[in-house]
Amino acid sequence: MFYFDDGPGHDRTAPDTRSLHAFAPGAELRHDRLTGEPVLVAAHRQTRTVSSAGGDCPLCPSRPGHPTEIPAGDYHVAVFENRFPSLGGPVGGRCEVVSFSSDHDRSFAGLSDARRFTIGRAWADRTAALSAVPGVEQVFVFENRGAQVGATLSHPHGQIYAYPYLPPVQASVLRAARAHRAAGGGCLLCPIVADQAAGPLVVAETEGFVAFVPEAARWPYEVHIAPRGCVPYLTGLDDEGLAELMYLYGDVLSRFEDLFGDGETAYMACWHQPPLHQTDLTHFYVQVFTTRRSADRWKFLASSESGAGAFINDVLPETAAERLRNVRVRGRA
Amino acid sequence: MFYFDDGPGHDRTAPDTRSLHAFAPGAELRHDRLTGEPVLVAAHRQTRTVSSAGGDCPLCPSRPGHPTEIPAGDYHVAVFENRFPSLGGPVGGRCEVVSFSSDHDRSFAGLSDARRFTIGRAWADRTAALSAVPGVEQVFVFENRGAQVGATLSHPHGQIYAYPYLPPVQASVLRAARAHRAAGGGCLLCPIVADQAAGPLVVAETEGFVAFVPEAARWPYEVHIAPRGCVPYLTGLDDEGLAELMYLYGDVLSRFEDLFGDGETAYMACWHQPPLHQTDLTHFYVQVFTTRRSADRWKFLASSESGAGAFINDVLPETAAERLRNVRVRGRA
Repeated sequence: MFYFDDGPGHDRTAPDTRSLHAFAPGAELRHDRLTGEPVLVAAHRQTRTVSSAGGDCPLCPSRPGHPTEIPAGDYHVAVFENRFPSLGGPVGGRCEVVSFSSDHDRSFAGLSDARRFTIGRAWADRTAALSAVPGVEQVFVFENRGAQVGATLSHPHGQIYAYPYLPPVQASVLRAARAHRAAGGGCLLCPIVADQAAGPLVVAETEGFVAFVPEAARWPYEVHIAPRGCVPYLTGLDDEGLAELMYLYGDVLSRFEDLFGDGETAYMACWHQPPLHQTDLTHFYVQVFTTRRSADRWKFLASSESGAGAFINDVLPETAAERLRNVRVRGRA
Repeated sequence: MFYFDDGPGHDRTAPDTRSLHAFAPGAELRHDRLTGEPVLVAAHRQTRTVSSAGGDCPLCPSRPGHPTEIPAGDYHVAVFENRFPSLGGPVGGRCEVVSFSSDHDRSFAGLSDARRFTIGRAWADRTAALSAVPGVEQVFVFENRGAQVGATLSHPHGQIYAYPYLPPVQASVLRAARAHRAAGGGCLLCPIVADQAAGPLVVAETEGFVAFVPEAARWPYEVHIAPRGCVPYLTGLDDEGLAELMYLYGDVLSRFEDLFGDGETAYMACWHQPPLHQTDLTHFYVQVFTTRRSADRWKFLASSESGAGAFINDVLPETAAERLRNVRVRGRA
């Protein structure tokens, strides 16, 4: 159990009073001989906790007589190992849960600047720690927000998967980065960021970071946030840089939430860091996207996407950028 | 407009009496520099026809005063170009719709053996014709069945996409096949089929074909149907082989439909043929899968799958095979 606080002076020594069965990860890593890609089989997860009610939420603080996953009676940010992990055990790797707040009804977009920074610090610290776990090849920080993208808990939280293998998307990026290097280029992402930084695809920006819709966006609304400079991993940012990034990240999430005026747009947020020890081929970026196409339509991944991997995006990226730029975020002037 | 009939003697000369605006495909092929993959942007499709009611179904036969996409007053199988295509125009390629029956309330699983064969013949004929269209690199036959996988029309039908580029999944298979060849192997798929043909993953089989759950299945329920011999393309089957395959295919679709006892399991069915002119690296297979995990749960592609491409399957493939073998199909003894 790791606590990260917005400031010093908090007692986080409360013990876990529950008597729990030790979990048996039991996942298995298989190899798809047709595509050459790894697939995790994790049959034990069919019975995992599904809850959106406040009363029995496992991420709310423990109360007398109601112990939860988090022993503390109050907390800022808490990180712990997932009790229904896809990774771990014989397969290797680790799955962690990051609770963003003890307040069940918040979302990331509604958190203070101080809390956003604390979460960023937690992510950077856990990235460093998990990168040092033997066998881990990729640390992947993410948030699934909303039932429409499969979130099983509504309490504001994210997850970290430390994969003991290179996931297919990161493998593709690595392949593209190596081809770019072989053709005489430097970092794969740097020229992409430079190309977008002043164009019609920009959604929001700060001095050190830019948020833009990728030119070949796969999803109806998709934004990449990247440093303008070449910072390979999240761990390479100083406090000032991290605070600036987390501010911009929260701004982008607010735009997604309010995209259709009801504050309820489900989204996925994925922190793409290079594979471990690949520090000079490309740098990190955050990918935020939703499958919501309009107020009442959602993008399905049908046969073209799910069977052939051929994405068809119904929203022009330039139109998506304009709409995201113009979102009127609740609670802002 | 192409009609395929279960037998001779049908007049299919009825003209299209509608005055339609010529469609402007207007899609654009973009290149994702990060992953090296193509993405289609097709903004004009946001307004495409969505209908599940019988009264205004565009795939029902034309009636006096109610012309549809299909001029005939009755038909067996009809193939025509999609009026809201993702492909075509400056991008190249083609999108076709294949209606399986004039009966709005059927599903593929409920069709006669004769009709299944006619559909197979239509697919083989269109595969041959579209393979000859300049610029086409991959002919992809598929069916999306059910609203849960994004089907916008409930009339029994499939589609054919003739991609002017190699889709990412087929590119992965080609890469794996070339690596297999470089390591001294022959066809990539032949030894996989041989390995599964007598094992616990078999769901159903005929003399020439076997249907099995892949060892590293990505989806809760997924079946591959492949010839035991090395037949690269659907066009390489004789009538007898095609009839046998279409019988087994219909059997597998019946098992999917009835998997949870309500006859309503949505599925995707994808015909994976090798890229054009790659006749000796691998052979064709059909992939049938559903995102339904249980009677009331569906698999979401959340951040691990959608962001990292790292699939986590909650159902053990061996368990899926056993359940699919034991499905009690409606209307059978």
